[in-house]
Amino acid sequence: MDLPAHITAALAELHYGEAPDTLYDPIRYIMGLGGKRIRPLLTLLGAHLFTDDLGPVTKPALATEVFHNFTLLHDDLMDQAPLRRGQPTVHEKWNPNVAILSGDVMLVRAYELFFDVAPALLPVVLRRFSQTAAEVCEGQQWDMNFETEATVSIPQYLDMIRLKTAVLLGFCLELGALLGGAPAEDAEHLRQFGTDIGLAFQLRDDLLDVYGDAATFGKRVGGDIVSDKKTYLLLTAQAQASAAQRAVLARHIGQPVADADAKVAAVRAVYDELDIRPQTEALINEYFQQALHHLARVGAPDARKQPLHHLALQLMEREK
Amino acid sequence: MDLPAHITAALAELHYGEAPDTLYDPIRYIMGLGGKRIRPLLTLLGAHLFTDDLGPVTKPALATEVFHNFTLLHDDLMDQAPLRRGQPTVHEKWNPNVAILSGDVMLVRAYELFFDVAPALLPVVLRRFSQTAAEVCEGQQWDMNFETEATVSIPQYLDMIRLKTAVLLGFCLELGALLGGAPAEDAEHLRQFGTDIGLAFQLRDDLLDVYGDAATFGKRVGGDIVSDKKTYLLLTAQAQASAAQRAVLARHIGQPVADADAKVAAVRAVYDELDIRPQTEALINEYFQQALHHLARVGAPDARKQPLHHLALQLMEREK
Repeated sequence: MDLPAHITAALAELHYGEAPDTLYDPIRYIMGLGGKRIRPLLTLLGAHLFTDDLGPVTKPALATEVFHNFTLLHDDLMDQAPLRRGQPTVHEKWNPNVAILSGDVMLVRAYELFFDVAPALLPVVLRRFSQTAAEVCEGQQWDMNFETEATVSIPQYLDMIRLKTAVLLGFCLELGALLGGAPAEDAEHLRQFGTDIGLAFQLRDDLLDVYGDAATFGKRVGGDIVSDKKTYLLLTAQAQASAAQRAVLARHIGQPVADADAKVAAVRAVYDELDIRPQTEALINEYFQQALHHLARVGAPDARKQPLHHLALQLMEREK
Repeated sequence: MDLPAHITAALAELHYGEAPDTLYDPIRYIMGLGGKRIRPLLTLLGAHLFTDDLGPVTKPALATEVFHNFTLLHDDLMDQAPLRRGQPTVHEKWNPNVAILSGDVMLVRAYELFFDVAPALLPVVLRRFSQTAAEVCEGQQWDMNFETEATVSIPQYLDMIRLKTAVLLGFCLELGALLGGAPAEDAEHLRQFGTDIGLAFQLRDDLLDVYGDAATFGKRVGGDIVSDKKTYLLLTAQAQASAAQRAVLARHIGQPVADADAKVAAVRAVYDELDIRPQTEALINEYFQQALHHLARVGAPDARKQPLHHLALQLMEREK
């Protein structure tokens, strides 16, 4: 089965509601902006390790995508982001109140997509989904808190990206395992596989912001530096800087930006002196290897694991 | 059992989450502002018609109160309300982003309070809750839409208050009935009882805004008139006004307010000429009688129905 095509077709069948259109058009709009649909794909691939019957897995898989887009909708409003996937965000195209309320109903619709799960599994699935949903909110709140905090430790930062990004990827795989009838131990290894891939992926995003190829990255290179974002790279540099390097960072971070290119160049020079790039790559690799270790311990045939392995490599851009 | 005391005690036991406190303090704050806790009371009274074992009903009953406060939190933000129960609203005390995100996690926590429901009942309870939650969002969106719409019909208005306010009260009773083991028909009569009481209650609120006693109403009398709110009273007056009366309304509604007292007096004079008060009272009474009719048809002993009957009278302030 062509899973991405299956996901696209199933998403197109979803009905979010009719009236008022100011409530439901924004949901159709953000869901229609596309994206890689990684989360439902992870759920389906997780289930396929244990079953060929993906029919009952499809709607719960879509729930993860609806939930993810709900978080994007509300996060874009909170971050006052003008664009999402190159298109106006919902609060820009409509208004902030519409973004709040259509986001709220998206969260309800995400829950509804679970309700056909077999009654024996439904409580555990919903408990794990709800725990994950709360953790994603916690991650977003930490991220916002960090903007105004003077010091953020590296463990605090890693915990924030774990909550904000990684736990949902872990849940998607665990969900697939539970629905596919996996033993609890396998579901747990898959959850950890997804979480570690998520951590690696987010750190790779931090790295590409500074060292990525502008042509393929899709965002402005150095954007995190210009906006003083406390990334793994910056926090590591601040922790390891000499007095002179600390002075360079202090002259640029949290100060009015006269020349963005000069700021990026100066901060990157400190990163280069401190070997921040290879250090970040080493941590990414550590999470990636840990992820593969968890996947290896899942009790399913290697042939069935291959698409997950391949997807993990793709997410790391180690394979096209 | 003293149900209000039971609800207060059970609410005090709820744990919403620990960190970050910027996420969870606002939840504890709004839940701590008090209120009449009508919704969980309706659920417990609905269940008590059919069972003496209210233990398994308590957490789902609290879910309705957490959900209700979630809607207050987000609605206050959307309406830019400065005060809630005489205290600063969450977006005022913290900021709008905190209000968005702690509201989101409240909706998750509301769902979680259902997950101990017996597996055989869980899907139907969650489906009905989710449908109700989406309808409440629809009602709020219609309410916001109406602010900028030139014409709103009376059926449109009644449908808006049904969605925004009444369906949740209906659900609370239906939930109690389902958890108490009621036959489907009784659950449906209770749902309709609650919905009709909700409609009557909201219309009574519209009426008290204009004709209430300032000392006991708790809000500024005439506030709806000053803010051009399209209430049942205004829409009925506009529909029945003579050319001269229409001109008086047009001179005041949707115009800059030079003298608020004069505006209230002028609009109220038109209401008085058109007998808007007795007309509204008649409609309130119609919904109230319809509610009692549904309660009468529920197959439970009259003695058990008495507290619900009494509560309905209290809500209408026909009995203290």
